[in-house]
Amino acid sequence: MDSHAALVAANAAFYDAFDRRDLAAMDSLWAGRPGDVCIHPGWEICRGPEVHVSWARLFSNGQALRFHVGEVAAEVIGDAGRVSCVENIWSPDGRVLLGRVASTNLFVREDAAWLLVLHHGSPIAGKGVERPRDDAAN
Amino acid sequence: MDSHAALVAANAAFYDAFDRRDLAAMDSLWAGRPGDVCIHPGWEICRGPEVHVSWARLFSNGQALRFHVGEVAAEVIGDAGRVSCVENIWSPDGRVLLGRVASTNLFVREDAAWLLVLHHGSPIAGKGVERPRDDAAN
Repeated sequence: MDSHAALVAANAAFYDAFDRRDLAAMDSLWAGRPGDVCIHPGWEICRGPEVHVSWARLFSNGQALRFHVGEVAAEVIGDAGRVSCVENIWSPDGRVLLGRVASTNLFVREDAAWLLVLHHGSPIAGKGVERPRDDAAN
Repeated sequence: MDSHAALVAANAAFYDAFDRRDLAAMDSLWAGRPGDVCIHPGWEICRGPEVHVSWARLFSNGQALRFHVGEVAAEVIGDAGRVSCVENIWSPDGRVLLGRVASTNLFVREDAAWLLVLHHGSPIAGKGVERPRDDAAN
């Protein structure tokens, strides 16, 4: 696999772990450096060990979600790899699009593996987004 | 200047151009590649030439803002440079903190200059944030 394809695969593995709420898999995808940064929508910036804590909190307290990731654009810059994409987030039953999140994921290459050093997600305007409350009311 | 200091300076130049609403300065800070990405809070992802258009729109239509940038963490990864920071955004008179934005800025080194290839800003929870509407009501 070339480095661009490996970067896209690492990004897909991130959303697979997110989708499955698999904390061990999520931890294994991160570089685990003090400078790691994770910004969940609306949260304060999590750094270093706070990143693991944030995923543990999300996976234990949050709602199960289904991710459909689109608009993936990946670029290799030496030993850094950046991916921009849009997370289309669906209810577990796949019936309601809960929201859309613009995401920036930054990886570093270590021993031929792409490891996350930054995730930044933030809500964006939705075209044709159905809100679950409206859905429940209908 | 070493490369880390130059990266921090490039990030500061970005906020200086943002603060002064200087479109020519802003344009000069970007790599100007088709893959450039800019995500303003709540907007769709702007790519390539849309990045310039987005700044032109912000600077012509938006409110004048004052930036106080804190929590700056910069890392050089070969010819890539990433900066995470928090934008504390104040009203022009400096009296009201309008909001706080978590920001990811990614640069590439070209001919010894750090040029932006990605800006991602998103609102975060504010501690002690005064909202302008509340302020006006008091």
